Amino acid sequence: MGSVYNGNIKLSLFGESHGAAIGVVIDGIPSGVNIDYDFIEKEMDRRRAKNSSISTSRKEADIPNILSGILENKTTGAPIAAMIENSNTRSKDYSSLRETPRPSHSDYTASIRYAEHNDVNGGGHFSGRLTAALVFAGAVIKLALKQRHGVVIASHIKQIHDIKDNLPRDISNTSYGEFVANYTKTMPVFDNKALEQMLASIDEARNDHDSVGGIVSAIAFNMPCGFGDPYFDSIESKIAGAMFAIPAVKGVEFGLGFDFASKKASECNDNLYFDEDSQSIKTKPNYNGGINGGISNGMPIVVNVAFKPTPSIAKEQLTLNVKTKQMESLAIHGRHDPCIVSRAPVVVESMTALALLDTCIAMKGVL
Amino acid sequence: MGSVYNGNIKLSLFGESHGAAIGVVIDGIPSGVNIDYDFIEKEMDRRRAKNSSISTSRKEADIPNILSGILENKTTGAPIAAMIENSNTRSKDYSSLRETPRPSHSDYTASIRYAEHNDVNGGGHFSGRLTAALVFAGAVIKLALKQRHGVVIASHIKQIHDIKDNLPRDISNTSYGEFVANYTKTMPVFDNKALEQMLASIDEARNDHDSVGGIVSAIAFNMPCGFGDPYFDSIESKIAGAMFAIPAVKGVEFGLGFDFASKKASECNDNLYFDEDSQSIKTKPNYNGGINGGISNGMPIVVNVAFKPTPSIAKEQLTLNVKTKQMESLAIHGRHDPCIVSRAPVVVESMTALALLDTCIAMKGVL
Amino acid sequence: MGSVYNGNIKLSLFGESHGAAIGVVIDGIPSGVNIDYDFIEKEMDRRRAKNSSISTSRKEADIPNILSGILENKTTGAPIAAMIENSNTRSKDYSSLRETPRPSHSDYTASIRYAEHNDVNGGGHFSGRLTAALVFAGAVIKLALKQRHGVVIASHIKQIHDIKDNLPRDISNTSYGEFVANYTKTMPVFDNKALEQMLASIDEARNDHDSVGGIVSAIAFNMPCGFGDPYFDSIESKIAGAMFAIPAVKGVEFGLGFDFASKKASECNDNLYFDEDSQSIKTKPNYNGGINGGISNGMPIVVNVAFKPTPSIAKEQLTLNVKTKQMESLAIHGRHDPCIVSRAPVVVESMTALALLDTCIAMKGVL
Amino acid sequence: MGSVYNGNIKLSLFGESHGAAIGVVIDGIPSGVNIDYDFIEKEMDRRRAKNSSISTSRKEADIPNILSGILENKTTGAPIAAMIENSNTRSKDYSSLRETPRPSHSDYTASIRYAEHNDVNGGGHFSGRLTAALVFAGAVIKLALKQRHGVVIASHIKQIHDIKDNLPRDISNTSYGEFVANYTKTMPVFDNKALEQMLASIDEARNDHDSVGGIVSAIAFNMPCGFGDPYFDSIESKIAGAMFAIPAVKGVEFGLGFDFASKKASECNDNLYFDEDSQSIKTKPNYNGGINGGISNGMPIVVNVAFKPTPSIAKEQLTLNVKTKQMESLAIHGRHDPCIVSRAPVVVESMTALALLDTCIAMKGVL
Repeated sequence: MGSVYNGNIKLSLFGESHGAAIGVVIDGIPSGVNIDYDFIEKEMDRRRAKNSSISTSRKEADIPNILSGILENKTTGAPIAAMIENSNTRSKDYSSLRETPRPSHSDYTASIRYAEHNDVNGGGHFSGRLTAALVFAGAVIKLALKQRHGVVIASHIKQIHDIKDNLPRDISNTSYGEFVANYTKTMPVFDNKALEQMLASIDEARNDHDSVGGIVSAIAFNMPCGFGDPYFDSIESKIAGAMFAIPAVKGVEFGLGFDFASKKASECNDNLYFDEDSQSIKTKPNYNGGINGGISNGMPIVVNVAFKPTPSIAKEQLTLNVKTKQMESLAIHGRHDPCIVSRAPVVVESMTALALLDTCIAMKGVL
Repeated sequence: MGSVYNGNIKLSLFGESHGAAIGVVIDGIPSGVNIDYDFIEKEMDRRRAKNSSISTSRKEADIPNILSGILENKTTGAPIAAMIENSNTRSKDYSSLRETPRPSHSDYTASIRYAEHNDVNGGGHFSGRLTAALVFAGAVIKLALKQRHGVVIASHIKQIHDIKDNLPRDISNTSYGEFVANYTKTMPVFDNKALEQMLASIDEARNDHDSVGGIVSAIAFNMPCGFGDPYFDSIESKIAGAMFAIPAVKGVEFGLGFDFASKKASECNDNLYFDEDSQSIKTKPNYNGGINGGISNGMPIVVNVAFKPTPSIAKEQLTLNVKTKQMESLAIHGRHDPCIVSRAPVVVESMTALALLDTCIAMKGVL
Repeated sequence: MGSVYNGNIKLSLFGESHGAAIGVVIDGIPSGVNIDYDFIEKEMDRRRAKNSSISTSRKEADIPNILSGILENKTTGAPIAAMIENSNTRSKDYSSLRETPRPSHSDYTASIRYAEHNDVNGGGHFSGRLTAALVFAGAVIKLALKQRHGVVIASHIKQIHDIKDNLPRDISNTSYGEFVANYTKTMPVFDNKALEQMLASIDEARNDHDSVGGIVSAIAFNMPCGFGDPYFDSIESKIAGAMFAIPAVKGVEFGLGFDFASKKASECNDNLYFDEDSQSIKTKPNYNGGINGGISNGMPIVVNVAFKPTPSIAKEQLTLNVKTKQMESLAIHGRHDPCIVSRAPVVVESMTALALLDTCIAMKGVL
Repeated sequence: MGSVYNGNIKLSLFGESHGAAIGVVIDGIPSGVNIDYDFIEKEMDRRRAKNSSISTSRKEADIPNILSGILENKTTGAPIAAMIENSNTRSKDYSSLRETPRPSHSDYTASIRYAEHNDVNGGGHFSGRLTAALVFAGAVIKLALKQRHGVVIASHIKQIHDIKDNLPRDISNTSYGEFVANYTKTMPVFDNKALEQMLASIDEARNDHDSVGGIVSAIAFNMPCGFGDPYFDSIESKIAGAMFAIPAVKGVEFGLGFDFASKKASECNDNLYFDEDSQSIKTKPNYNGGINGGISNGMPIVVNVAFKPTPSIAKEQLTLNVKTKQMESLAIHGRHDPCIVSRAPVVVESMTALALLDTCIAMKGVL
């Protein structure tokens, strides 16, 4: 329970890190969406561990095997199931975690939730590896969102540790193309100097057997105005609900987000105006991240997502042996990312896409 | 659509600011919960405008008229419906908003979403006044949560504008009683000096015909360990989904939240230990806000919620006349809060309670 | 829990027979639907006890007090709440039901489900009286369904006890107008001789302090072809799920329904043909009741609904005293219907309308 | 959309008849359920085409390949995904169905719903073959239902064409063991003479290139009293909603079902009594099929399910060529069942199990 996203689009996520396969079933994608396999592969590649100094040394082929729902490169309207086989597993690394759960990890909570039946190998169902299935789903959803509603989604790494990216201009005025141009870099960061410092920071963490956190900002362009609902189906509620499904996410904010707290309304209200170029109503600036009263206002949707540092580090830590009730020293060996943020942008985009397609479908039904 | 919380507990919210009544139907509360009317009244009172310098001058009686589901002071198990009549309405204040929507408000987005049929009087269904119904529901839910699961929830104002509260000790080590002790103050703030400064800040905003934002922190004590799920039904997803239902909320984080971004794992991992006093496993500190892998770890649940300043201010602003496409000057008269944060803590607690009771019911079903 | 219909349209039903009020909140009705109060009143009137020999002597005004969601006779898009006050209650009639639950009634099961907290007065939340709120919701939904999608719904009483109605022609070829013409009769029955016999049968049951069952057939015209889904969201699943929400319903079938069992395919397949008059594809006949593979085929949707006789009868029955564990004689006095089927057609139509509007909204979102 | 059962248990069904695989993801099964592979295999075998004169000549291995959620023969609590590869497919049989849709089949409705993108090969996603995945899910659910709640489910074929089964005694007094004893027969029928006649009837239909319909009755033993809810989550609503997900089901009734229509209350009320043997309250008889007010009353749950004859028959039929708008003769070759009812009992049991486990989990959460 918990592994199903349950809106107009339904995702059913399955699999364990060291089981036979991970995968997802996507229900509710309209028929006739063109499946661009190159795009899907690129999206999968954006999440894949680069096997460089900044991510895990586990090599994952991550080739989704599509089992249903697509015929002659188009969606049929039936559920789309995809499976990614686990090939490169080393279960022996994790055998002791039942007794000495990793600090700040799900080992302990899952052992209470599922008792001794929980699969602890490689994090089991809790493994970040399952985000590969979310990215596959996200890629299909993005294709539907673009082809049906014209919406496109991009992201950059806003911060890693204490280093912040610098955008060429205000995020809402930076174009989709400018975002995508960064995807060929080691990490999607606008400012090359910031990128260098971020990489150095990750490298340092790796050398220290430590890890660092960060912030990813995603932006959705062309979301039609007047989509969404107040209260529990607000775009914010939908995006946040999906975003906190990503392991290690601990904060979600829209537009100015937490910075609104220290502002006065006169400083942070977005003013409506009529844009002659596009002959449409816009706001200046876009502090609200494209959403008022839970409903899109025609401006780009902007969401910032905070990731905690991967808790699994090789550095020695103290933890409790839950059997003996004694403290023990723990150094987690295995293949871990010193900064999962480097691989997170496409996952964040996927969850944004999921919530927005869900919103678009709901709106088409009632408008 | 959007006004229904749709979990194991279901809330159906209704009403408009200047309509006949606002209210809520709560479905799924177990039978036999003792209804403490004094508690409900106190909770309603915590949200009510104090008619002082810090909040709106609209006087709302806010007495919930319970229509069903309670017999002889106990829940029967049937849906609980409550209605709060709107008595003190002045519709003439809002007549021009269709042409000149308020900046950063839902006026414009709702006019697209619902076309000309949207009720704009006093914000209609989008009015913050509907949080009165959420607080009523929250009060009933808190009673169920406490009597059935032992969970109690409190909060304080963490920040207003640039002034921050100081807790006597780390939030997770501050007791429920210490939180509740602040509820007799003008605002639930621990540090009296900070409280004074916050009040001054609000007063200044009011005098400037402006408004200020802030942050509310809520904490849930005694949440059993092992409750929740990974992914889409994570406690974070559930709380965030409910929290963004509150008008003006623009950010939600758990534990360290966005501060995790600049941390190393070695600095912010929570270490497990065995607490001899309570004979239970705990963590030191509680940077994760009581949740790992979406599941409660036995520590207090800590959530921080960012509110933007009320966009409705008397200060002159420019806005678009959507008919003439010309910019016009707008000064919003009427009765508005210079800082809704002062009234928000009990609303934040209510949404926390909703998500946690939902989680408790789900878990009781499968454990 | 259970009193919320939870689709694209959400209904939240509340109230008890002898409480302050019954009512419903309807969430998801599009904005701009014209509210025809005469139509709503007529629909309410169709369900109301006629105080004649065929129904209960309880006089219910049943005037829905609309609390929200409608402005200037149009839906605003916000939730529509309506409350029907209970005026004519006599609680003393039901005091002994906790000890001697009525046979075949919910008294006993509710006493286990909700323990001693269940409100037994007049059946409490289980009372057939709550169908008044369903009919109000159904009336609003029918207006939306007609104005937005062109779908209209009618019904007749197919059978009471062993007397069957005779239609002028096959149900699918009988027009909407022909159905509605019967609504001025004491009961919506085509064949006047059958009507007379049915009335006699009910009268006889009433005189015997007994009650009789029956079957209602509903038909939906103009449902667009290609709406619905296979499997769990089939039109059959949606209608049946809603229909079994009506107290006393024990069977639901589509088209030939149970009569399919004794047929060969060659006898009961519906043949496709091109109808020159309407320039559209139709089937001859319509044994499948307008649905193939869970999806509408353009023919009228036909659903038959079996009602058991009201279990509350004045005739002496034996029942168990659950305290003493002794059998006791029970004669249920009070105001009961000798045949609820007479009042059921509009309720059956309401649930059909609910499922079909839900389907229409879902389809508009993905087609 | 439509292929997800969305309760406390979630099923996500996928696959097409002639695609790579069919399968299902089951979310919400508690951890620690013992997986009895022999039982699963037997259940799969009950549905499998016997390749005899009574069912399709398509040979399906139907071996579920479990991808996740089970470790060391126990459920881990994570989603259980299973895939059944399609090996024996002959796509050429179905190529012309786009132009000449089969009467009473989903070919035509799906072509409107999903446009030309619908996969028509072998019925695509609409194929009865997908019930193999439902049976796998049902087997796992039955194991959970039995181990956690003590509930066991059985069924028999009540009717095929005009031949009815005879039970040794009233269905509610026939034991689980007596039901299961029939599972070794060609079809689960109590009366051997009726069985013989049914087989002859099917054989005759096969020889005539025709097919016949029938009725399956399922029964659930040991359902605890007081489980369920009134209105939209009634046990009847839940079972019926799941049951109409089965292709070819056109009617669902509980207990006496449609026979209630011609009864008087005095003839069909179930009387409560105290059973000394079991020291529990029971009813005599069980005309209500174990459910009052949507809630279980402690008696066996009895549900009857009507199946129409498979519409795909080799006998010549007329159908419309949707391109030319001319009528054409159609004789459907390929491998079809002359009576799917023979394979349906285990599918009916599976859907009953799904709805009941869902109910049990919901109740454990609130009681």
